[in-house]
Amino acid sequence: MAKDSPKEVLQPVDDAVRAEVRRMIAEARHAALATLQPGSGHPLVSRVGLATLEDGAPLIFVSALAAHTGALLADARCSLLVGMPGKGDPLAHPRVSILCKAAIMENGPDMAVARARYLAAHPKAKLYIDLPDFRFFKLMPLEASFNGGFGRASRLTSADLLSD
Amino acid sequence: MAKDSPKEVLQPVDDAVRAEVRRMIAEARHAALATLQPGSGHPLVSRVGLATLEDGAPLIFVSALAAHTGALLADARCSLLVGMPGKGDPLAHPRVSILCKAAIMENGPDMAVARARYLAAHPKAKLYIDLPDFRFFKLMPLEASFNGGFGRASRLTSADLLSD
Repeated sequence: MAKDSPKEVLQPVDDAVRAEVRRMIAEARHAALATLQPGSGHPLVSRVGLATLEDGAPLIFVSALAAHTGALLADARCSLLVGMPGKGDPLAHPRVSILCKAAIMENGPDMAVARARYLAAHPKAKLYIDLPDFRFFKLMPLEASFNGGFGRASRLTSADLLSD
Repeated sequence: MAKDSPKEVLQPVDDAVRAEVRRMIAEARHAALATLQPGSGHPLVSRVGLATLEDGAPLIFVSALAAHTGALLADARCSLLVGMPGKGDPLAHPRVSILCKAAIMENGPDMAVARARYLAAHPKAKLYIDLPDFRFFKLMPLEASFNGGFGRASRLTSADLLSD
């Protein structure tokens, strides 16, 4: 992702890659979220529950007590890792790293959609979805790096990830 | 972890928590690694293969072609998420977020130990462990945040994570 990082051997993004990555994000129920620790700027990584909005943008639901929530409110830049390994070498399994900018969701129609979509993906979240200390953030994708296992890697734009 | 983040309800670290967290790290074969994108400072998260050194410190083996490797060489600050969800609510399963400083390993006796320990944890890595483009980094833990599921959280020091 960094222009000054070593060149990866990248493959072109075709419809099959685009569909695979969108499906991975749509089907994921959790992800690793990287944020910046307020003050120090040290990277933090933690687990978050995940759903998607209608356009495919990741949606997270987080506790105000969690370090990542304070971090996102201080600096909206974040990154999301989606895709779980199965058996064998964990690096042989597809995953996608998405650079995002987080936007907190306010009460209103968008929030109602977010709440319904999150509950559809996480029925057990009904136990805490209405607690006052929780917040929804939409994660607006900026770009993504897909790694499908050894020798299969692509760089994707936000347009590759989102539907119209 | 940040002093200015909202206060979590933390439980004291006892021997049982210490043992659970050390075991989670020792048994993990992969983790999510957060690094800082060189130049922009944007957080990046990606998957890495994981083993541990004799004192329990996390050990990663990464390709020079991967964005995280260039990021660690530019800024050693990173964070590691260990612990995988099982069935049900992904947030009900234990995980630990570790703030670390990465140190690249140079050829020598420590590297030989690292290589042997990584191969013991990842037998399939013998296919690429001797390729010239790969590097070992020891991740020196600074502090960690354990989340054992709802209502069970502790803050650990590096001494809690490492054996003498």
